[in-house]
Formats: sequence, structure tokens, C-alpha cells
Amino acid sequence: VATHPAPSDALRATELTDAWDVLSVTERLEGLRLLGLDELEDLLLGLPTHDQVELFLAASRYEARAWMRLLPPDDLADVIQEADPADRPTLLDLLDGTVRKEVVGLLAYAEDDAGGLMNPRYARLRPEMRVDEAISYIRRQTREQVETVYYLYVLDAQQRLLGVVSFRDLLMAPPDRTVRDVMHTDIVTVHEEMDQEAVSALFAEHDFLAVPVVDDAGRMKGIVTIDDIVDVVREEATEDLQKFGGMTALETPYLETPLRDMLRKRGGWLSVLFVGELFTATAMAYFEHEIAQVVFLAVFIPLIISSGGNSGSQASTLVVRALSLGELGLRDWWRVVGREVTSGLALGGMLGALGFVRVLAWQAAFGTYGALSFGLALTVACSLVGVVTFGSLAGSMLPLVLKRVGFDPAVASAPLVATLVDVSGIVIYFAAASLFLLG
Amino acid sequence: VATHPAPSDALRATELTDAWDVLSVTERLEGLRLLGLDELEDLLLGLPTHDQVELFLAASRYEARAWMRLLPPDDLADVIQEADPADRPTLLDLLDGTVRKEVVGLLAYAEDDAGGLMNPRYARLRPEMRVDEAISYIRRQTREQVETVYYLYVLDAQQRLLGVVSFRDLLMAPPDRTVRDVMHTDIVTVHEEMDQEAVSALFAEHDFLAVPVVDDAGRMKGIVTIDDIVDVVREEATEDLQKFGGMTALETPYLETPLRDMLRKRGGWLSVLFVGELFTATAMAYFEHEIAQVVFLAVFIPLIISSGGNSGSQASTLVVRALSLGELGLRDWWRVVGREVTSGLALGGMLGALGFVRVLAWQAAFGTYGALSFGLALTVACSLVGVVTFGSLAGSMLPLVLKRVGFDPAVASAPLVATLVDVSGIVIYFAAASLFLLG
Repeated sequence: VATHPAPSDALRATELTDAWDVLSVTERLEGLRLLGLDELEDLLLGLPTHDQVELFLAASRYEARAWMRLLPPDDLADVIQEADPADRPTLLDLLDGTVRKEVVGLLAYAEDDAGGLMNPRYARLRPEMRVDEAISYIRRQTREQVETVYYLYVLDAQQRLLGVVSFRDLLMAPPDRTVRDVMHTDIVTVHEEMDQEAVSALFAEHDFLAVPVVDDAGRMKGIVTIDDIVDVVREEATEDLQKFGGMTALETPYLETPLRDMLRKRGGWLSVLFVGELFTATAMAYFEHEIAQVVFLAVFIPLIISSGGNSGSQASTLVVRALSLGELGLRDWWRVVGREVTSGLALGGMLGALGFVRVLAWQAAFGTYGALSFGLALTVACSLVGVVTFGSLAGSMLPLVLKRVGFDPAVASAPLVATLVDVSGIVIYFAAASLFLLG
Repeated sequence: VATHPAPSDALRATELTDAWDVLSVTERLEGLRLLGLDELEDLLLGLPTHDQVELFLAASRYEARAWMRLLPPDDLADVIQEADPADRPTLLDLLDGTVRKEVVGLLAYAEDDAGGLMNPRYARLRPEMRVDEAISYIRRQTREQVETVYYLYVLDAQQRLLGVVSFRDLLMAPPDRTVRDVMHTDIVTVHEEMDQEAVSALFAEHDFLAVPVVDDAGRMKGIVTIDDIVDVVREEATEDLQKFGGMTALETPYLETPLRDMLRKRGGWLSVLFVGELFTATAMAYFEHEIAQVVFLAVFIPLIISSGGNSGSQASTLVVRALSLGELGLRDWWRVVGREVTSGLALGGMLGALGFVRVLAWQAAFGTYGALSFGLALTVACSLVGVVTFGSLAGSMLPLVLKRVGFDPAVASAPLVATLVDVSGIVIYFAAASLFLLG
């Protein structure tokens, strides 16, 4: 039943939430102790798992036990997984016997699987119940902690899922029919090992509030609810974006990630990219003679190669995101080639024209490039067309190739595409130079 | 009441969904006509707005009218907004009178506001109702289309929101109490003009199924439900990622975006970046004399500047995402500076050591750089430390500066940061060269 909180209590909760990030653990504990049960539960459930772990470990055994009782088993499993391995037994020990069993069961699943997301508590009905019996049975069940009573799952004696019925369906059905008569049997279920990204795509496609999770034998194991999916979608988007920035995704918020972890996750990719980029030095050393001959050739290299990298990073972003939203499949590769070659030629033509004008304008104004100015203008323009087209094509194909060979397409990050395109950009540029300028 | 679909009907729906992307509009229409009402509704509700518009315009008036009746008013408003302005009157004309009024009301809101997301239909109660009256009133209301009956909103005669009560609360309360006695009054509401990104952050923080939308006077206008939020989160992540790839976000799926739109959205930023990158040519022209003196100085330029760009893009990704998740605020800027300068020095030191070894190893193996090899090694190593540190700092500060002056921090894309860092990278490199090599 609803409690009427004193206004000062709600106010205190708001103040605590606002100040949360700048408070120490001790200050947070003190703040929580001042709250009524309703505000405490609200605030605690909304905290990042990392903060929950910190609080439970800092609080007294008595408090930690009481507070952990407010969390559903799926959140508790996250808490245990987030904690330092050394602290896990302490935290598990604080749980009541039956809850501990549920949580240990959930810990067997990978964190990113449907099984790792699901809540093992849900409302069950037997098919032979009458509708009115079912309604009063559910009214009794809601007194206990059942995450959602909006969908009711009809199971046989072997826990196999037979059907689903919404509470609304029950309320509207004639009281003397059986549950079997009114249940829906065309049920969308997810397997306990389905990846959380696939589960969230399912929620985006259908407007479900919850989806049942089953094992190989069709036995029901729990439900994944839509509020957990919102978190999954945000988490996956963060991972994609961080990978796209050319690093291994962090598991914790930026300011809370230990410096050592951050250096490892950034340094790995940075070194790989550096080694890749070393080939630009090798490629340029090969054209050392041409540079010595026409020094201002070197001057345009950063411009040329970065244009290829930029167009490549646009193309790879588009393809990576379209793949992860399911808008694009591997079988569409030739349509992507068509689009990117056309776009690349058009965009390269545009930049080429800009580059052409730049060289001739500087020549007209300052006489910078002397007799070679027209050849240089042609070299810059043509290599921009080539580099931008190659960049768009390489940037769009790399994620598809990665996916084909079983890697995560999001590895095709802006810096990786830029690095790949840089070396070929140098080759294209000097090829154009030997055609229009030196040949 | 639940209907038992023939297996062939459910199968047909699955087949149609699987083949959807490769079918023409006519084939889609034919497929839909074969489905039972349940499957039709399911499939139609799950379609992207773009496909819905296409179908409604291609179907007969009679069919389009019947199919549009299956969509809630918020989805219908999206359909009208997505359609070509010339087709909007035709589509509006297909709606029934009261629905049309609701939809026109919703169209007044910006698409990205809470008002543009909300459904104007929700279950209302009066505070003086008895609990048992309320239960039977709601049971009658569920026969009509009310998006969610899990939360019931208690309004006064002026439509001002007084409280909220869940259906579960009602079922558990003594039947002779009034709604006012059992309702919760500490309600989280959103203003009709709140941005959808802020609304979705609220859903992520609290585990709501729905949130009431109110106007300036506290009058209730509708509810935003969590299933719409899943779409918002995916959409916002796509926009962020596309901006991050250095382009204006597309509004339609990659393969469905007309080439002209895509060229405009990519070409704009590509030109801006190109103009920025032109400064590298200006900067290098300034050091033409040094390049002529020691030609192999030019050879390392792509390596140096791209390392700065890569570390900068890592830093900007982290900060952009942390800002958009609310993990980081402007007031944290000095903590970010501390982290990024430390990380930059450590990562730059690592790459610098690799570069140092590379130059001396090539010298030992091939005698490439002659007497200047040690000076060159020092130049490469020290400029890497400088460039990576500067890149990390610039990449992390740019999104904060953009946010401070009121721009979207996600504009600090990988290509933009790389372009900014390139020019300074050249200056740092030649400064190091004049210190260790030429001076």
C-alpha cells in the first residue's frame, strides 16, 4: 500500500541524488540512513552496480543485509559479478538462503546472455485453473516479490512453457473458462544463451514488456523485462562508440576507471595503430627521391591522406551502425559497393576541385610552385578523387569483411580505417605525381 | 480475449517478416492481406515508420483506414511527420474524427520532445472514487484502447495530476478506501517540452514503465511508455555514432537514404575538414627549407600526426559518451585534464620508445639515416610524447568547450579532432627537429 512520505523525506532523497557523485562512501551511507524505506529503495535500485557494491561493503552487516533484500535476484547477481573476487563470498553470505540459491544459479550465465539478464521470479499459472481462481491466485502472489504480474506464464508439471496470458486478458475473460482456453500459444521466447544484443533487437521490433527465457528443453527459466533492456541498449551503444574511437571498451564510467585499466585499453590499440602507421614511413622512404626532387610534394601529403581517412571513417560508421541495427546484411555487400563508389567519386571530385583551385590560387597569388604548378594541381586533384573513393570503399568493406570472418564489425574504427587508408593514400599520391609531374 | 491463430497464419507472418527487406511494396501488401488480424497488428506495429507510410499510401483507402486504426495516436503522429508534406492531408483524411484531433494535437510538438513521444491516451481516476469502484471502472476501460493500465493517473477536475496508483496497489488495497487514500503523491513527471534524451536518461535511472507528461500548469497531457524509450535510445546512439564518424546524422536507414541526401550530409563535413586540413599544407610549407635540408624528416610526418589524431579520438569518444550518459559534467573539467595529461604522457612515452627503437634499428640494419640517426630518433620520440599528450588533451577538452558554448559535444568527431591535432602535430615535430637535429 502506498505510504505518504513526509515532504522533507522526498526532498532529502532529491538532495542526496543530486550531490551523489561528489560524496564519499561514508557521506553516502550517512545520507541513506536518513531516508524512509520508499526513498531508500528507489535510490538504491537506480544506482550503478559499481556504487551498490561499494555501499554494501562499507555498510554494517545488518544494514547491508537489509538493503540487499530490496534488490531483485538479477540485480544481486550483477552486484556479485561486479565485486572484486575476494569480496564475493562476503556479499553472497549476506543473502538469505533461497535468494542465495537463485543468485548462484544466475551467476552460471555469461553476463551478456539472456540468462544473465533475466529475473528468475515471475508469475506462474497452471493450464487447468479457472479464470477466477487465477485472478485471486495472482492477487495473492503480488504480495510477494514478483517483478511483473502483467504477463502470466502457463507452465506444465515439467516447467515447460505452454502459453502466456496478460492480466488484462484474465480480467476480461468469462470467470468460468480455464486458463488454457484464454492463453496465447504463439509465444516469442528467447533461449537462455541468446546474446543480449539480439534480445534487445527483439524488444525494439516488438513492443514487449517482458519476454520468457527458456532452456533447450523448452523449460522456463525466467523473464527478461524491458527496463533491463534500456540499460543494455545504452551499454551496447557505449561499447560501440568506444570501439569506434579506436580503443577497447571500458567497463566502468570514465572518471571511475582506474588509470592503469584505461592505459591498457587505450595503449593496446594505440600501439597496433602505430605499427600500422609505421608503413607510411616505409612507403614514403620509397619515394624519398621524388620528394628530394620536388620538395613541395611533401607539403600536401597530410591533406591527401587525411581526406581518405575522413571519408573512410564516414563510410565505416554508416556500415557498422547499419549492421548492428540489422538494417544491413552481408548479402547486401554489392549494394554497398555501388553506393560507396558513387559517393566516393562524387565527394572526391568535390574535394579534388577544391584542391585544384587551392594550388592554382596560391600560384597566382604568391608564385609558390613555379612552372610545376599545373602538374601539381592535377596531381592533387586526381589523387584526392582516388583516395576518397578508395577510402569510402575500404571503410565500408572492412566491417563487412570483419563480420564475415567472425569478428566484431565495430573493430573497424575511425582510426583503424584511417591508418589503412593512409598507406594506400601515399602510394596513390606518388603514382599521380609520377604521371602528371615527374614523368 | 486471446484468439488461437492457425499455425499456418503464424508461419506466414514469420516468413513475411524474414523476407520483408527484399520485397516490393506490392509484394508486401499482398503478404499483409493474407494475415489474420492478430499477426497483421503485430507486424504493422513493429515496422519502421518509413515502411508504414509507404504501405498506407499504396493500399486502398479502405485498407489504409482499417490498418491505421491499429496504430496508437503517437505512432500515427510519427507516420504523418515522416510522410512527404504533399501526402500528409491524404493520410490525415483517413483518420477517424476524434483520432485526427488527437494526432493534430501531437503534431504541434517537436518530434524530439516528450510531447512528441507521448500517447495522449491513459487510464484516469478521480480521487474520490472508492477502490472497488476504481477496479471495475478500469476493467471496463481496458476494453477500449488504453496503452497501459498498469499505472492509473488520478486527476482533479482541471486535469491536474494529483497522484498515481498502480493496478497492483488497487488490487491489494481495502475495497472501501478511496483512491486518494492509496495513491502515491511523490510523482516523477516530465514537462511536455523536455528533450527525449533527458526523458530516456530518466527511464534509465528509475525503472519506470511509463511517465506522465504535464504542461506548465501541471495539467496532464499524456504518458511516455518505456517501449518508445527503447527506440529513442537506439536512435540517439545512431545519431551520436554517425556524428562521431564525422558527418551529419542520417534520418533514414543507410540503404534507404537517397544518394543526394547522403552526399549532402557527408560532403558538408568533409569539406569543412578539408579546409581545416589545408592548414597542414600551410604549416609544412613554412618548414619547406628544413625538409629540403633533411628529406627523411618528411617521411615520419604521417606517423607523428596520426598518432596524435588517434589518441585525440580516443579521448574525445570517452568524454562525448560520458557527457551524454551524464557520468561527467562541465565542472569535472579539471579532473579530465589531470587524467588526460597523465594518460597522454604515459601513452606518448610508450609510442615514443617504439619510434626511437624503429629509427635506430633501421639505422643499424640499413644505415638509412647516416650521421643524423640519433638526432632523428630523439626528434621522433620527443615529438610523439608531445603530440600524443596534446592530442589527448585537445580531444578531451573540445567536447567540453563545445558543450560550454551551447553546441552538441558529439560534433567533436574523430576526424575533427584528428584535423585539429594534425596542424599542431606538424609544428611540434619541426620544433623538436630544430632542437635535436638542425639546431
